[in-house]
Amino acid sequence: MVSTAERLAKKQKEISVSEFFEKNRHILGFDSLSKSLIMGVKEATDNSLDACEEAGVLPEVYVGIDRTGKEDFRVTILDNGPGIVKKNLPNVFGRLLYGSRFHSLRQSRGQQGIGISATVMYGQMTTGRPAIGASKIEGSDTGWSMEISVDTKRNRPNTRNEQAVIWESFIAEQGLTMMWTEYDHGTFISYTTKGRYITGKQSIYEYLRQTAIVNPHARITFVDIENKVTIFERATTEMPPVAKEIKPHPTGIELGVLMSMAKTTKARQLSAFLKQDFSRISDRVANEICETGGLNINKKPQSLSLEEYKSLLDAIDTVKIMAPQTDCLSPIGEALIRKGLRHVLNEMRPDYYAPPVSRSPKVTSGNPFIVEAGIVYGGDLPKDQQVQILRFGNRVPLLYQQGACVITKAIEGINWRQYGLEQRGGRGIPYGPAIIMVHVASTKVPFTSEAKEAIANLEVMRQEVDLALRGCARNLKRHLNKQEKRKKTRVKFEIVQEILPQIAIKSAAILERDVPDISGTITKIMNVIWIDASAERTKKGLRVTVRVFNYTNKKQTFKLHTLFPREALDESIISDHIADVEDDGRITWEIKKLPKTNSVEISFDLKELGASDFDENDIYVSGVNPALVMGADQLPGDWGIKAMDITEVEEEDDDDELDYDENGGTIDDEE
Amino acid sequence: MVSTAERLAKKQKEISVSEFFEKNRHILGFDSLSKSLIMGVKEATDNSLDACEEAGVLPEVYVGIDRTGKEDFRVTILDNGPGIVKKNLPNVFGRLLYGSRFHSLRQSRGQQGIGISATVMYGQMTTGRPAIGASKIEGSDTGWSMEISVDTKRNRPNTRNEQAVIWESFIAEQGLTMMWTEYDHGTFISYTTKGRYITGKQSIYEYLRQTAIVNPHARITFVDIENKVTIFERATTEMPPVAKEIKPHPTGIELGVLMSMAKTTKARQLSAFLKQDFSRISDRVANEICETGGLNINKKPQSLSLEEYKSLLDAIDTVKIMAPQTDCLSPIGEALIRKGLRHVLNEMRPDYYAPPVSRSPKVTSGNPFIVEAGIVYGGDLPKDQQVQILRFGNRVPLLYQQGACVITKAIEGINWRQYGLEQRGGRGIPYGPAIIMVHVASTKVPFTSEAKEAIANLEVMRQEVDLALRGCARNLKRHLNKQEKRKKTRVKFEIVQEILPQIAIKSAAILERDVPDISGTITKIMNVIWIDASAERTKKGLRVTVRVFNYTNKKQTFKLHTLFPREALDESIISDHIADVEDDGRITWEIKKLPKTNSVEISFDLKELGASDFDENDIYVSGVNPALVMGADQLPGDWGIKAMDITEVEEEDDDDELDYDENGGTIDDEE
Repeated sequence: MVSTAERLAKKQKEISVSEFFEKNRHILGFDSLSKSLIMGVKEATDNSLDACEEAGVLPEVYVGIDRTGKEDFRVTILDNGPGIVKKNLPNVFGRLLYGSRFHSLRQSRGQQGIGISATVMYGQMTTGRPAIGASKIEGSDTGWSMEISVDTKRNRPNTRNEQAVIWESFIAEQGLTMMWTEYDHGTFISYTTKGRYITGKQSIYEYLRQTAIVNPHARITFVDIENKVTIFERATTEMPPVAKEIKPHPTGIELGVLMSMAKTTKARQLSAFLKQDFSRISDRVANEICETGGLNINKKPQSLSLEEYKSLLDAIDTVKIMAPQTDCLSPIGEALIRKGLRHVLNEMRPDYYAPPVSRSPKVTSGNPFIVEAGIVYGGDLPKDQQVQILRFGNRVPLLYQQGACVITKAIEGINWRQYGLEQRGGRGIPYGPAIIMVHVASTKVPFTSEAKEAIANLEVMRQEVDLALRGCARNLKRHLNKQEKRKKTRVKFEIVQEILPQIAIKSAAILERDVPDISGTITKIMNVIWIDASAERTKKGLRVTVRVFNYTNKKQTFKLHTLFPREALDESIISDHIADVEDDGRITWEIKKLPKTNSVEISFDLKELGASDFDENDIYVSGVNPALVMGADQLPGDWGIKAMDITEVEEEDDDDELDYDENGGTIDDEE
Repeated sequence: MVSTAERLAKKQKEISVSEFFEKNRHILGFDSLSKSLIMGVKEATDNSLDACEEAGVLPEVYVGIDRTGKEDFRVTILDNGPGIVKKNLPNVFGRLLYGSRFHSLRQSRGQQGIGISATVMYGQMTTGRPAIGASKIEGSDTGWSMEISVDTKRNRPNTRNEQAVIWESFIAEQGLTMMWTEYDHGTFISYTTKGRYITGKQSIYEYLRQTAIVNPHARITFVDIENKVTIFERATTEMPPVAKEIKPHPTGIELGVLMSMAKTTKARQLSAFLKQDFSRISDRVANEICETGGLNINKKPQSLSLEEYKSLLDAIDTVKIMAPQTDCLSPIGEALIRKGLRHVLNEMRPDYYAPPVSRSPKVTSGNPFIVEAGIVYGGDLPKDQQVQILRFGNRVPLLYQQGACVITKAIEGINWRQYGLEQRGGRGIPYGPAIIMVHVASTKVPFTSEAKEAIANLEVMRQEVDLALRGCARNLKRHLNKQEKRKKTRVKFEIVQEILPQIAIKSAAILERDVPDISGTITKIMNVIWIDASAERTKKGLRVTVRVFNYTNKKQTFKLHTLFPREALDESIISDHIADVEDDGRITWEIKKLPKTNSVEISFDLKELGASDFDENDIYVSGVNPALVMGADQLPGDWGIKAMDITEVEEEDDDDELDYDENGGTIDDEE
């Protein structure tokens, strides 16, 4: 008789990783028809942007969707990236867990080598058709095109109809616009899939729009199912800094991982192993670690006992080691966040873009990370709804699971009332005409699931998001305060100027006397230089008017300053008072000997591009006692962008204090 | 010059599935130290229970935890299952995606062949030590023991110190209690791991306690870090029905999957393919499908064109096909749910176990499922807290992600006020002294993640949970109503009996007359037979007292009935009035010619085992006009368990209506 164990033994066998993900596709985000459609676009776009950046090419990404049945679609993505060599093309698109970035410690969008091949697999599962993959690499004469499908039983690609193609003709045959035939290299993927096409907050359009915000160096073309073409133009031609690959940081490493590294290292001595295989370990630190652990620095790393490995680990946790270098990260930066937001959100004509905040790097579980945030306020943004939250991880928009994300948790934990937004009960997502944007960049963004929809709620990360947001929020509050103050001053002015003369007339009539000249009295009451900037939308962009009233007792001479992108200005900036327009956009006017009770008016146009840069609070004065001036602050000493974007410096942790990582280990942030 | 594509090509390579899960361990639930410790116990226990059931063995599971360092533990699990043959032992414990249940369509706890090997991998990563795996199969002379670790680069097991062992001696050497040396076969796994040991709602103790509730046929022994031994005794020796393996149901199948099955089938003709490779396709249905799709039934299944496969799929979706058979499921059943709950929860001395509800099977995406629910109420359960929710998927407790689970969503959607629980605003988790238990059994429980913590919020499943809960809740409400009514009647009695005589005395004194005999008046006012059951805890269990008052105008003769487990009764049941005690626990008393205004009292003891079965509402009468009786209902026609557990029958979907599955396809529930 066969025992149960023997019967079971016959059934025990290996399961291929493709079979696993075929059955558990929800892990990868393919858990509803609308989400499945967007997942493929996301995976392909991420790969395109990663590849372009790796090759130092300004990314051009084409995304096209055709409806081929009620719930059937053809999705096509093309880029101008470095391409994929012919041999690897089938594997990249037709084999799960195959990729180039899994083992490298640095910021990138994709890492696992699953996303795009899972997309191809899902397409073939739901429509029965293989994908078409094609690529041409730089310097090669021809490109290659082939049909690719996943053999799920073996997790290997199957190919058909491999053929050499002339890239220009191949692209032209796909019916794409001529622009695309200009590129000499790139990657093309086209697949059919079951899906549901939706519009709104979780649409492909929104995904690409948000991608454009955090990738201002990319141009993205989207052709939707009605053949409507949307081009998200690039806002800058500046490539993001290349994220460098780093070695693992020793802090927080696990015993088994340390042992496994020691067993396979090429180093012959313990000290060399520590220095060569980890980042941030100098000669001095390596010696200190060995000494602390009571270990001989010349010992073969392979030959330690379990107890000695434990001592080594304890020593690593004890000795002070510099935080990981952060050139493995590629943050967007404050200037480009502002540019990206303006560029994409301008259609909603917001009043104010709060100067963004890019925090200094921190570390969790050995992975450095940077949090960046921006807030957009007012204008046509809806006033009676919750603020819109734009979440990003390594420059990729996160559209799902908002409630589970550390970004949302941090937002909900802030008392937004003190920053001028409505919030019921002082907790939760605030209400008001605002968009809050947060980007987390890391060598390993701690997503809650493989579908990369929400970032885990780690204490240290929530704190950073909190601090970044409070920085922005203070800028917003300052703006709102100034606006309020300006409004009150204006009202006071109007009252004084309208009421006083009327009182004079009335009093004179009652007393049957002549109406007295009270301009001196008004001046006496006011005793200010009143600067009133306002703007009006025109067809071309914005008409800015600055009025200067001298309500003091004497002539006044002083300078006015502001800052606009040079390219937003036209000849209208030239006026009697203009003194200087510099290439970086710094503008100076000189007001000479303005007599008392007199005023001057300066007007100029801003082109659409720069219109969103206008902030009525960004007018500064110099050469006059600032106590006399209402409506403008004194020019800060450090003239320049910083003068305009005065981000209040957060009280940072004292240098002597340590940051605690999630495992309770301490990391000294020595950067 | 090397192009970027060529540079990248060198880095593009396969990633092993172990490396993937090593880096993404949070997918499997290893995302905090406390959870990691419980995950291993869970995976090993699940495997043990699955294996025992497969072998038809009443499960004995031993779980032991030792603390070996501040955050280091040794975890040992032993079972009396069928064992694992020597050749496969390394693979089962040291290789991810290796198992026997991945391809079979039937209810089981584990399926992917990942859990236990991931546990071994996590242990080795965090402590540097291999696991010890051992097993002896039935009928073999020796068992085998070996050290097993995962080679993550290759996803293959490494073994050391393989040795044949005498099972009895091997088990004895592990320091387990003698009981364990009795078993002739079983599987042993012991590993060290980093973890955090906690108590409370997400503890190992709680996990095993809940496991015992839904597996009343298992005996589980737990030895905690302080060497405290807890034994969860089995409540029944009845094995759950063996879940049979079924073939895939055609409804909701995807085009690509259908094509892939057609390409690899052994059948030579389309009709044979449909009949042999799918469940619920008869000759008639196969012909109807082919006819509807315009396909020749004799065509080779491999030779269809894409368009023909599409027609086949459309025809499958059109033709009426019976819902999947449900012998692939192994629900707990109403009787055993009640038993399991009582057995484990009795320490909290709840007042009332609402008769559980086990729904009839439904289908989602081709997978049949059954929802079962129970409610426990009152006693020592905390009154001012949210009710406790016990969630189960395929007899496995779900301790995490309560908020994301379909069970919680269904509970939150019910207006519990109408069933007697507090609920702020009529939505959300109710408050009160109750425990709500829900079990979902399916060939594929749609978990939201691989860590199996929450069940996806599918419409059809939420409805089923809702209906099951409402069924239980109505039973609870009926109990509470009866209790309330009984309380009011008692109060009325007390008033009448105390006040009327006093009024009589007072009136007599005022009128200076004799006090009249008003017992006739009381009888006239009442005109009922009043039955008052109550119970009092004693050392041995429960002392039940039933008082019967005849407040009618004549002698009364009738019968009283109730039901208790036979084993809960002792000789105290014998009294003057006892008429019959049957083996199944049905008890009958005869009250003969009870004169008007007289009463009798019946008392007896219930042993602890049956004490929780007492429900003061479960006293019934017969042989008398029920309109005269207060405090007991008339005995229903169907004497038996059902008479006591009258679960109101839910308005079921009309037979002609269809259930919609999540993909919008329709399934006719013909079961």
